Amino acid sequence: MKVASLVFLSVVSLPALAQQPTIAGKWTLTLDTFGTATTWPLTVEQKGDHITGDYAGDKLEGTLKDGKLTFHAKDPGGDGYEDVTATVSGDTITGTMIWAQNMTVAHPTTHTFKAVRNVPSSASSAPPKTHEFTPTVFRRQYSSAYEPVLTVNPGDTLHTWTVDAGGNDPSGTPRSLGGNPQTGPFYVNGAMPGDTLVVHIRKLRLNRDWAMSTNGIVPRANTPALAAKSQNKVDTVRWHLDLANNIATPEKPGPHMQHYSVPVRPMLGCVAVAPGDASGPGIRTGDSGGFGGNMDFNEVNEGATVLLPVRVPGALLFFGDGHAVQGDGETTGDALETSLDVTVQVEVLKGKRIPGVFVDNDTHIMAVGLDGSIDQAFADATETMFAYLEQEYKLTPQEFAMVLGTAAEYKISEAADRNAGVVLKMAKSKLATLTKPAPTQPAPATH
Amino acid sequence: MKVASLVFLSVVSLPALAQQPTIAGKWTLTLDTFGTATTWPLTVEQKGDHITGDYAGDKLEGTLKDGKLTFHAKDPGGDGYEDVTATVSGDTITGTMIWAQNMTVAHPTTHTFKAVRNVPSSASSAPPKTHEFTPTVFRRQYSSAYEPVLTVNPGDTLHTWTVDAGGNDPSGTPRSLGGNPQTGPFYVNGAMPGDTLVVHIRKLRLNRDWAMSTNGIVPRANTPALAAKSQNKVDTVRWHLDLANNIATPEKPGPHMQHYSVPVRPMLGCVAVAPGDASGPGIRTGDSGGFGGNMDFNEVNEGATVLLPVRVPGALLFFGDGHAVQGDGETTGDALETSLDVTVQVEVLKGKRIPGVFVDNDTHIMAVGLDGSIDQAFADATETMFAYLEQEYKLTPQEFAMVLGTAAEYKISEAADRNAGVVLKMAKSKLATLTKPAPTQPAPATH
Amino acid sequence: MKVASLVFLSVVSLPALAQQPTIAGKWTLTLDTFGTATTWPLTVEQKGDHITGDYAGDKLEGTLKDGKLTFHAKDPGGDGYEDVTATVSGDTITGTMIWAQNMTVAHPTTHTFKAVRNVPSSASSAPPKTHEFTPTVFRRQYSSAYEPVLTVNPGDTLHTWTVDAGGNDPSGTPRSLGGNPQTGPFYVNGAMPGDTLVVHIRKLRLNRDWAMSTNGIVPRANTPALAAKSQNKVDTVRWHLDLANNIATPEKPGPHMQHYSVPVRPMLGCVAVAPGDASGPGIRTGDSGGFGGNMDFNEVNEGATVLLPVRVPGALLFFGDGHAVQGDGETTGDALETSLDVTVQVEVLKGKRIPGVFVDNDTHIMAVGLDGSIDQAFADATETMFAYLEQEYKLTPQEFAMVLGTAAEYKISEAADRNAGVVLKMAKSKLATLTKPAPTQPAPATH
Amino acid sequence: MKVASLVFLSVVSLPALAQQPTIAGKWTLTLDTFGTATTWPLTVEQKGDHITGDYAGDKLEGTLKDGKLTFHAKDPGGDGYEDVTATVSGDTITGTMIWAQNMTVAHPTTHTFKAVRNVPSSASSAPPKTHEFTPTVFRRQYSSAYEPVLTVNPGDTLHTWTVDAGGNDPSGTPRSLGGNPQTGPFYVNGAMPGDTLVVHIRKLRLNRDWAMSTNGIVPRANTPALAAKSQNKVDTVRWHLDLANNIATPEKPGPHMQHYSVPVRPMLGCVAVAPGDASGPGIRTGDSGGFGGNMDFNEVNEGATVLLPVRVPGALLFFGDGHAVQGDGETTGDALETSLDVTVQVEVLKGKRIPGVFVDNDTHIMAVGLDGSIDQAFADATETMFAYLEQEYKLTPQEFAMVLGTAAEYKISEAADRNAGVVLKMAKSKLATLTKPAPTQPAPATH
Repeated sequence: MKVASLVFLSVVSLPALAQQPTIAGKWTLTLDTFGTATTWPLTVEQKGDHITGDYAGDKLEGTLKDGKLTFHAKDPGGDGYEDVTATVSGDTITGTMIWAQNMTVAHPTTHTFKAVRNVPSSASSAPPKTHEFTPTVFRRQYSSAYEPVLTVNPGDTLHTWTVDAGGNDPSGTPRSLGGNPQTGPFYVNGAMPGDTLVVHIRKLRLNRDWAMSTNGIVPRANTPALAAKSQNKVDTVRWHLDLANNIATPEKPGPHMQHYSVPVRPMLGCVAVAPGDASGPGIRTGDSGGFGGNMDFNEVNEGATVLLPVRVPGALLFFGDGHAVQGDGETTGDALETSLDVTVQVEVLKGKRIPGVFVDNDTHIMAVGLDGSIDQAFADATETMFAYLEQEYKLTPQEFAMVLGTAAEYKISEAADRNAGVVLKMAKSKLATLTKPAPTQPAPATH
Repeated sequence: MKVASLVFLSVVSLPALAQQPTIAGKWTLTLDTFGTATTWPLTVEQKGDHITGDYAGDKLEGTLKDGKLTFHAKDPGGDGYEDVTATVSGDTITGTMIWAQNMTVAHPTTHTFKAVRNVPSSASSAPPKTHEFTPTVFRRQYSSAYEPVLTVNPGDTLHTWTVDAGGNDPSGTPRSLGGNPQTGPFYVNGAMPGDTLVVHIRKLRLNRDWAMSTNGIVPRANTPALAAKSQNKVDTVRWHLDLANNIATPEKPGPHMQHYSVPVRPMLGCVAVAPGDASGPGIRTGDSGGFGGNMDFNEVNEGATVLLPVRVPGALLFFGDGHAVQGDGETTGDALETSLDVTVQVEVLKGKRIPGVFVDNDTHIMAVGLDGSIDQAFADATETMFAYLEQEYKLTPQEFAMVLGTAAEYKISEAADRNAGVVLKMAKSKLATLTKPAPTQPAPATH
Repeated sequence: MKVASLVFLSVVSLPALAQQPTIAGKWTLTLDTFGTATTWPLTVEQKGDHITGDYAGDKLEGTLKDGKLTFHAKDPGGDGYEDVTATVSGDTITGTMIWAQNMTVAHPTTHTFKAVRNVPSSASSAPPKTHEFTPTVFRRQYSSAYEPVLTVNPGDTLHTWTVDAGGNDPSGTPRSLGGNPQTGPFYVNGAMPGDTLVVHIRKLRLNRDWAMSTNGIVPRANTPALAAKSQNKVDTVRWHLDLANNIATPEKPGPHMQHYSVPVRPMLGCVAVAPGDASGPGIRTGDSGGFGGNMDFNEVNEGATVLLPVRVPGALLFFGDGHAVQGDGETTGDALETSLDVTVQVEVLKGKRIPGVFVDNDTHIMAVGLDGSIDQAFADATETMFAYLEQEYKLTPQEFAMVLGTAAEYKISEAADRNAGVVLKMAKSKLATLTKPAPTQPAPATH
Repeated sequence: MKVASLVFLSVVSLPALAQQPTIAGKWTLTLDTFGTATTWPLTVEQKGDHITGDYAGDKLEGTLKDGKLTFHAKDPGGDGYEDVTATVSGDTITGTMIWAQNMTVAHPTTHTFKAVRNVPSSASSAPPKTHEFTPTVFRRQYSSAYEPVLTVNPGDTLHTWTVDAGGNDPSGTPRSLGGNPQTGPFYVNGAMPGDTLVVHIRKLRLNRDWAMSTNGIVPRANTPALAAKSQNKVDTVRWHLDLANNIATPEKPGPHMQHYSVPVRPMLGCVAVAPGDASGPGIRTGDSGGFGGNMDFNEVNEGATVLLPVRVPGALLFFGDGHAVQGDGETTGDALETSLDVTVQVEVLKGKRIPGVFVDNDTHIMAVGLDGSIDQAFADATETMFAYLEQEYKLTPQEFAMVLGTAAEYKISEAADRNAGVVLKMAKSKLATLTKPAPTQPAPATH
C-alpha cells in the first residue's frame, strides 16, 4: 500500500514569497485519507487576494496572502464542508484540510494534502522519443501503490517485452508467480483523471517458439452434457510456434489433430491503467474493469489502439498476458500463452474522458463490456457505445437505437475470467454517414 | 390441434391378401395417444411368419400371417410393453396397440395407429423441379397440425414470397395478424424423424420499397442508465428501401441521421421444421428452439444453407420474417421488417441427424445456440458444435477444446425474443487441417 | 385453433326493433382477424341517435338508428381508422369492420365481428354454488381454442381432481400424454380482459399413495464438476406417499437414505388463465408467463390464493401438475408427481388489473417473476411488486426502494422449466405500516 | 504487499545441535516466490538420517544430519523438482530451494523459505479467554499482507466493534475511507490451510441510533421500465434506530411512509479469512469469494455460525459492514449501514476443510453460492451443498438429487455487489433422517 508519509516527505517550511503567486487554474489534490492517498480536482479563480473556485464539486472561497492559502469549501447540496490552510510554492500547494462530511458533519476530521498544478505537460513540447525498456519486476496487481518503472511523455514510443501469463520470460525462465504478471507501470506525463490514455500497439511479435495452453473448457462455455462426456478433465498442452511461417501446432497432437495448425495472431490479453482507489487499493491482474485489465480480447493486436479512461495521475500503464493466438472467449482458460515483444506509442486526450474501454482499428470502433455474466456484459457494451456516440455525434437514445439496430456487431470476447466480455463493434464505414456536430469543444489531443 | 380422426380416415377393412407381404424394414408409426398424434420408429425383421424387431427401443416378437400382424414388444429396462394387432396393406399397417407403460404397467391403455414405410422416396428418382408457389394463408404457429400447402421432393426448388413480420404483403396489404406469420408448411417427401432437412437459400430479394422498424432497445440490451435517459420510449420507424442501389435510409431521420444509410442485406428471421409433439401441439412463430424458428440470425441470407433436424414425417418447412438489414441481436425488437421474394432448394440427409440447428456458408459452419439467456445460449452453441465435430471428425472432448480455443468465433445473434441466440462459427479453413476419419457410415444425402 | 365460423354461427338476420336500443356502456368486441379471433374493448356514449366513444384507443363517432349502428373510429396518434356497419340486438352487436392500420393505411381490410356487453354478470346475484366436476379430457396447451368444460359464476366453488404431470389419474391409469395435462378450462362468467381472476385454493389433498420423480439435477442447478461426478445420469424414482401420516419416502432408497422421509405439502405446479392471442394461438402446459402456467411454486398450496390477470372473456381457468412435496426450484425436473383432489373458489375483481401473477397467503403477498434466466426473473419480480405497491399504496419508486431494501424476501421458485422463477415475498406485517391512500377507486370485488 | 524480508527477519545462525532433531510430521512452508510469500504443505517421515515425505504433492527423499536438512522432491506426474538445503532449529526450518517447474524444467530458480511445524497449538490447552479489543485501524482489503491486530486461541471469545460501511464509528466520527472497512485481521493460533475456521456470533448489537441507506435499486434488481419511472435517481437516506424498541424508521419519510417501521435484525455484511495468494495479493473488502467477504447475507446475525476454509496460516479473520436490518439481496446498495458491537467465539476444525462458505444456525445448514450472476451463484450453492453432504453423509450425486428435490430452500442473498449470492438452506430436521456413515475420520475440533 502506498504509504502516505512517502508522499509528503517533501513538505518543508518555505520562506514567504515576496511576490503574490498565481494559483488560478486546475490542480490535482492528493489527500491522506486515513492512510490512503486519494486524488481530487481543484479549480481556482484568483482576484487579488481573493480566491474562489471549486473543490471536488464544493464551492470554495478564501484568501491567498504571502503564499499562505486558506479557504472554506461548502457542498451546495448538503452540510459538508472543507477548511483548508496551506502554503503555496510554485506549482505545489501543501497543507491541512479539516473535512466535515455530509453524513457526519458534527465530526470533522483533519488531513494533510499536497496539490500539484495540472499544467499542460512541459514535456509535451519535447520531441517524441523511443524508450528501450528491459523489465525486471512483474506486477500481479493493477495498483497505484507501485513505483512507476519508467516515465514517458505523450507521443513517446516504448519497446519492451512481456513474460507469459505464468511468469516465464522469452528464454523460458520463471521470473514471477503466475496470474498474468505485467510489465509496468509506466507513468505518462500530463495524464490526469478525466483524460483518456491512448495506447497504439505499433508492433506485437512472438519472441520464443512455444506456448502453453490447456485442453479444457471453461465453466461458462461448458454444459452438464459436455462435462459428463469429458469427465471435466484438463491437461496442460504445449504448442509449437513456427516463427518462420507464423503458425501454431500442438506438440503432441491426438489422432484427429496430427495435421492441425492455425495461423498465429499475437495479442495482449491485458492492457490497463491503475484503477485508483474507487476499486480499492489494488486489483489482481487476472481481473478486469473500467480500467481495462485482463480483457482477453483477440483484436488487441498489432495495429489496434486501446483507449482507457485515466483514473490516477500519470495513468500508470500496465500490459502483459501475451497470446500467440486465441479463439473468441479464451475457452481453454489459458490461450496459447507466450512471451511477446511489444512496441506501443502512448498519447493523452486532455480533458476528454472516454466513457469506458474502447479498442479502435482500421475498420471498427469497439466498446468493451465487462461484467459478471455475458448477458450483463452485452448490455454494458451497448450502454458504453451509446455514451460514446452521444459524446461524438450527439445522437439521441432513439437515434442510437436505429444505428445499433442496423449496424451492431456483437462478439463474445471473454468467457475465461471473472468478468465475461462482450465487444460491440461498429463499422466506421457505417458511422461515416452520421452527421457529426460542429466541434464546439477543442478536443486537444496531445500529439 | 391435429384431429386424430383425420389421420385415420383411410382406415378401411381390406380383404385378406393371398400373398405374404414383406414388412421387413423401417416404418414410422403414428399413434393416437389420447387424441394427439405422435410418431414412433418401428424396425421389422421377418423370417417366414416370424417377426422380430424394435419398436421405439422395445424389443418385439410376433407373427405375420395372411396380412394380419400381431406382436408383443417389451421394454428391456422396465416392465412396460406393447401388444399390437394390425392389418398390413402394401406400405401401410393399421391397427390397435395395447400400451402398458413402465410406471403404470397395471393400467394398460388401448390406441389406434397407422404405420407407413420409410421407403426411400419414390419421388427421389424424379428429376428435380422448380415450384412456383403463391401463398394465401400464413401460419402463426410452427405445428404439424396444419395441412401442408405443397409437397415437394428432395432436390426440388421452391420460389415464393413471405409477408413481413406484421403480416403485410409486397403490396402493403395486411394478410394476417402479426407475430411473424409464415409461408408454408411444405411437406418434403421422404423426410423422416432422424433425418436432416437441408434448406439452401438460393435467392433472397427485396420486393417492395419500404420496411417497418422501431427506435427502441430491447430489454436484454438495455440498462437502467440507458432507460432512464431514453425514458424507455419506442416509436415505429419507417425506412425507405432503395431497390436500385440496395441501401436503406430512414424516411424521417432525426438531425444527426440526415444522411444515414446502410446497405441492405436481406435475411430470413425464421426458418423452421414442425417441432413435433415433444414441444407440445404447436409453438408460436415468435419463438425458436431445436426446430429452428425465429432465430433472427443475420447470416441466414442468400447463399447460406440452413440445416434442421427433422422431427415429424415430411419435415414441414416454414419460413418468414424477412429483414432488409439487421444488426446483430435485432436490438430494435423489429428489424427492417419487409416482405421478401424467396427461392430455396431442399434436400434430405437420410439417416443423419444433425445435432442442433446449423447454418453453413462458403467460409463457415455455424452452430446456433438458443436459450433463455445469452450465457446459456453460449454454452449450448458450444455443446452443439462439439456434437457436430464429434460426429464428423470423432474429436474427443479434449481435442475439441483445443480446436475451440484456437478457432472459435462467437457472435450474439439474437437478443430480441424469448430465446437469446449465440452462434458459434468455425472457419472451414481451420477445420480443413483436422483429420477426418475414414467414412464408415454412408451418409447418403438424397441428391 | 379457434375457428372463426364457430364464433359467428349465431349471426342471423333480425327484424328491425321498434324501439331505440341503449348501447351506452362497455362492450367486448371479438374480431375475425384473418381467421383468428381477437378481442378489443369498446366504450360507447349515446345521445339520441348520436354515438361517440372509444374503440381500442381510437375515438369513434357515428349513428345508431333502427338498430343499425355505423361509426368511424380514428387513431388520434396516426392515420389508422375503422369503419363499422353493424346490427344491434339486445346485448349483442354483429357486423363488419373496415380496418385501415397506420402502417398500411392505403390497404384497408374487411372483417366480421361480434360484440357483447360487459354487463355485471347477471349470475353474480345468484347464490354461490359448489360444482362437482369429473374431468374426462386433459389439455396440453393453455389456449382459448378449447371449449370450456364448465361455466361457473364468481363466488362459486369447484371440486374436481387432476392427473399427474405424466397424465395418470388417481387409479394410476394413463389418461393423457404427459407434459402437465390440465383440468379445465373453466369459463368464469363476467371475467373480462382487464379484470383479475382470484383463485382460492380451499383444499388440496393427496388421492393416491405414490408419486413419480427422478434422481437428476436440472441443467440450471448443475455444474460441470457435479455433472462429471454424477455422469449426468438420471433415473425415474418412485416415492411412497403415506396418506395416514402425510409423509413421503423413496420406495427403493439407497444406502444413506434408508430412513429418509419428508412431510408432504401438496401443491399445484400449474394454475393459469388462457394467454390470449398476444402469446399466439396457444402455449404448451410445460410453459409459463404472465398468464400463470407451469410456475412450480411450492407455496401454491391449500390456503393460498392465486391472482391472475384476465386476458380473454371468461378467463378460462386451467390447473394441474400436482406435487406431493417439492423443494424450491423443482431441481429434480419432476417433483413428487401425483394426482390431487382440488377444491377452488373463484372470484373476479372487476376493472382491476393485477400487474402480474401474484400469490397471497396469511402472511405474505408474493409477486412471481418468470423469465429466461434467474437473474431476469429476479428483476421482473421486483418490477411487478413495484407496480402492485404503486397501485395499492401510490408508493413512488424511491419509497418502494426503501420498503424493498428493508422487507424483501426473494426465493428461487422454479429452475426446472423454460422460464426460471423468482418469487418476491413481502410480509403483510411490514406492509401494514404503510399509509394506504384514501380509496378513490371502488375496486368492486365480486363476492 | 507482504515483504519477504519481514518474514525472514528471525533467521539467525544457530550452533549445530548435539542431538538429532525430530522433524517427522506436518509443516507449513512459506516460500519467497519472486517477492511474494506463498505457503505449501510439507509432510516428513524420518528414519535415522533418512528423510522421506511429500512436498506439495511431490515425493521427497533426503538426509537430516547435524541439523542440516537436504532433500530432493520430484513431481510424480512431470519433470519438475525441488532441491532443498536447510537448517533445522526446533519447530523451524529455514533454507534455500532450487525449484524446477514442469513447463520450464530447464530453467530452475532459487528461493529462500521458512517452514514451521503444524503443531497442535500449544495454546489449545490453555483455558479459553475473552479478549476486549478496541480497533484503531480499519482494513479495506482482505489480505495476508497486514500485520494481525491480535492473536487469539481456538475457543477464545473476542469482544470488539465495527465501523459502518462508510468508515464511521459508534460516535459518528469518520475513521476510514468507505467501502466496508474491517476490524481485524485476527490471527487464530493453529489454524492452517486445510482447516476450517468456525466463527460463532455470540452477540451482535446496535451501538448508535442512526443508520445510513439509499432509496435506489441496484442494477441487478432494476429493469428498463422501473428505471424509466424512477429516473434512476438515488438519494442518501438516514434512518432512526430506536434502541429501546429495536425498530428502524426513516428520519424524513415520504407521504406514504409516515408510519413505516421495521424491526431491526443486526447482521454482519462481511466475515472473511485472508484469501491467500491464489486470489492475488489482496482483495478489496467490497468483494467476496471462497474466503467469505462481503456476502451481505441477512442471516449472519446473533446466534449464527460462519464456517470458512482456512487459506493462510492463522486464518486471519476480518469482519465489518454491520447492517441494522436488510431485505434479501441488499437491493438499496447500502442497507441500513451502522456500527455494531460484536462478540464472536472462534474455533478451528483441524484437518477438516469445509467445501465452501457455510452458515449454520439452530434450524438450517446453509451453503453460500457467490458468483457473477444469480444463475451461476445458484448452481454454485448447489454444488457446494453436494460436496458437504457427500463429505458428511457419503451421499451419491443421485441420493443428493433426491434430498435436494424434496428439501431445498433457495434464497437470493446478495444482489448489490460484484458477486451475486444465492444461499441454499437445508433444514436440519430433514437431514436428520439421513443415515450418517460410521465416523472413520476423527474430525478433531479444537474445543
